[in-house]
Amino acid sequence: MAVATKILLDESELPRRWYNIISALPAPPPPPLHPATLAPVGPDDLAPLFPMALIGQEVTGDDYVDIPEPVLDVFRLWRPTPLIRARRLERALGTPARIYYKYEGVSPAGSHKPNTAVPQAFYNAEQGVRRLTTETGAGQWGSALAFACAQFGLECEVWMVRASYDQKPYRRSLMQTWGATVHASPSDVTEAGRKILADEPDSPGSLGIAISEAVEQAGARDDTRYALGSVLNHVLLHQTIIGEEALKQMAQVGEQPDLIVGCTGGGSNFAGLSFPFLREKLAGRMDPVIRAVEPTAAPSLTRGIYTYDFGDTAGFTPLLKMHTLGHTFVPDPIHAGGLRYHGMSPLLSHIYELGLIEAVAKPQRECFEAGVLFARTEGIVPAPEPTHALAVAVEEARRCAETGEEKVILTALCGHGHFDMTAYDHYLSGEMEDFELPEQRIEQALTRLPNPQL
Amino acid sequence: MAVATKILLDESELPRRWYNIISALPAPPPPPLHPATLAPVGPDDLAPLFPMALIGQEVTGDDYVDIPEPVLDVFRLWRPTPLIRARRLERALGTPARIYYKYEGVSPAGSHKPNTAVPQAFYNAEQGVRRLTTETGAGQWGSALAFACAQFGLECEVWMVRASYDQKPYRRSLMQTWGATVHASPSDVTEAGRKILADEPDSPGSLGIAISEAVEQAGARDDTRYALGSVLNHVLLHQTIIGEEALKQMAQVGEQPDLIVGCTGGGSNFAGLSFPFLREKLAGRMDPVIRAVEPTAAPSLTRGIYTYDFGDTAGFTPLLKMHTLGHTFVPDPIHAGGLRYHGMSPLLSHIYELGLIEAVAKPQRECFEAGVLFARTEGIVPAPEPTHALAVAVEEARRCAETGEEKVILTALCGHGHFDMTAYDHYLSGEMEDFELPEQRIEQALTRLPNPQL
Repeated sequence: MAVATKILLDESELPRRWYNIISALPAPPPPPLHPATLAPVGPDDLAPLFPMALIGQEVTGDDYVDIPEPVLDVFRLWRPTPLIRARRLERALGTPARIYYKYEGVSPAGSHKPNTAVPQAFYNAEQGVRRLTTETGAGQWGSALAFACAQFGLECEVWMVRASYDQKPYRRSLMQTWGATVHASPSDVTEAGRKILADEPDSPGSLGIAISEAVEQAGARDDTRYALGSVLNHVLLHQTIIGEEALKQMAQVGEQPDLIVGCTGGGSNFAGLSFPFLREKLAGRMDPVIRAVEPTAAPSLTRGIYTYDFGDTAGFTPLLKMHTLGHTFVPDPIHAGGLRYHGMSPLLSHIYELGLIEAVAKPQRECFEAGVLFARTEGIVPAPEPTHALAVAVEEARRCAETGEEKVILTALCGHGHFDMTAYDHYLSGEMEDFELPEQRIEQALTRLPNPQL
Repeated sequence: MAVATKILLDESELPRRWYNIISALPAPPPPPLHPATLAPVGPDDLAPLFPMALIGQEVTGDDYVDIPEPVLDVFRLWRPTPLIRARRLERALGTPARIYYKYEGVSPAGSHKPNTAVPQAFYNAEQGVRRLTTETGAGQWGSALAFACAQFGLECEVWMVRASYDQKPYRRSLMQTWGATVHASPSDVTEAGRKILADEPDSPGSLGIAISEAVEQAGARDDTRYALGSVLNHVLLHQTIIGEEALKQMAQVGEQPDLIVGCTGGGSNFAGLSFPFLREKLAGRMDPVIRAVEPTAAPSLTRGIYTYDFGDTAGFTPLLKMHTLGHTFVPDPIHAGGLRYHGMSPLLSHIYELGLIEAVAKPQRECFEAGVLFARTEGIVPAPEPTHALAVAVEEARRCAETGEEKVILTALCGHGHFDMTAYDHYLSGEMEDFELPEQRIEQALTRLPNPQL
């Protein structure tokens, strides 16, 4: 009798609450500060950008937050997602380790991002908002929000970095298929965009510019709000549905993870899988090592410092206490666009400071090597981001092959790579490079912190 | 208490046998004939191309064929696939009809094709074959075979039509990620290819040319065989796992389909879903209408004739008795590349002649309209091929909205459109055209039948 390869949950077991890890911590993370007054940012500061329900979730001290029924109803299109035992990968590695991956690529947008896009769209619609704006780099977040807006009849307007808009047209097509309006950023529909275009008509754009365009539009109309795909507490909260499902699935096969590993850009994917397990760890019910994997090109946890910094490159956001390489740090052009972020979620940074999680950094070639091995054994072609987690899972499983240890490894496979095939082309061509990051570049960026004494 | 949206099967319910509809028919389909002798083609004629196990399945009269355990073991990576109730689509249509779709896009290659690629790779490997060759147009079949070969350690060599190779590089990347060698066809590695390149160095290629290159290479080495992704009996046999699962899933929610609808190119997707239901219909246990949907650009069932013709454009194959528009007929360039075929599976053609199934043809804009509606309600962006089935499902559901009939519609969603986003771009731009197919073009093609008196 074969033990199941895919561990599925019935829809009746879909989690009905999100888990708020803050309630279990010895102290809450330091609050965001207003850059001018240095006073903690309050609901009124955020109201022009976010609906009150999300602002409430940003600061809640409750253990759990109920997931509204209309949100669950959309989740049922693809959730619960499968937990899969990577038997064929294990066999290829000749390892006694047991590797499980929680696969979020079954969502319509192909990643974990709809887990927060859907509730964000719902709460905005519930408050009477008619239109959501956002920025997107490679398009993962923009497409998730486009899908979510289609479900609740909201208009969706996305500012997509010009370079990606031109080079990665398929994610743009996806957003448009779901009904979104997509602007190449800088665009001529915002003042911020027009200003940049006046100086530099051929600007390739940047995430910082796209954010200012999206935020400007959200502020300009009463019926419009802005949506963010990572970093903030409410985003991490929404992603905990991943870990809540995985807990049930591991229990179903009588397993407890010895190691949980996930990639970190802004932190929401990693937090989503690991926070419910961290609750169990803090309660003494299991004792997994929880390890974040970041790219060596953007090593905010492993080489950054813990201080107040801007969340965006342009310096529009409140000051966030987080691990940062400095908001002006521009990571080298690795293919894992979702991990090219100078900072790290304040909540995750706080937890790292508390010593509750570990972090390592990986160069991209090792990650793609793991990604190709995974594709040839497990079939799924992973997005470049989760290949970072796979690289660590493979490394650990190889170590077990030497030691004979039957370690249980749980990894977050947060999306497929169907829209990232040029990255695989690049790797297979043998011309992909790893980027050395000289200490000097980090030091330089850290000289431009907004308020180094904080 | 909500009724489930996704109807899942446990892995223990994965079907362990394929169903052979031939055993239930009043007469078997007419055999393929050797074009020179007009004698039925025997196993010896096919042995240079296919392993004996597949040749045996091509002609078997058994009701069922056991699925080998190593094949099931690969299937477990994604099978059983979900059956999904399209509640949000129903709501958008305001219909009392209940629409279910069987979703094959969860496979690694994103379509139903691995259902036959995996057993084909297995039987070849079992016989000691080291290398498989095939042709591919847009790349659906080539990528499925590349994935399957990776699972059994076979080399995979794919001749991809030059025009697609240049215009659709992502499917090529996918094949290469799974370890396949991909040649733009015509290539300089075969005699057939070199001959064409000598005459026309910039030839865009064609499926006919790619077939001759793949077949030539299969014949040239003892350790090499050829694999075909549709049309033949053994391919349709392998696809019946779709319908066997769907039968169990419909039973699980106490439903029987009133209408089963699927798109038809070579016929394997449609046959895969419908044959097990046809068995139930022939046995008097249910009475669904079973409707094939073809594109108006390649209407072999609705406007072709039933006669012996070549399976390929170049005239290399045995003569197949089938519905055909003539093997020299070149369909207009609709986006559903998988439906651009001049003929129809001989087995499906025979069943159509027996009056057991219906057929309709749809122009592509109506199909994409249904595809976009589906994407905005159900989330999944369908491949262009299954939008043909969706167009009929939507049409029928709208009719039910008028009549109040609570029809149960079951449709085959055979793949996602992640590698077809340019087609959606084209549709959304408003510039997509429907092609009128003048009777004269069909008449002309039919004057070039190899042996019109058969």
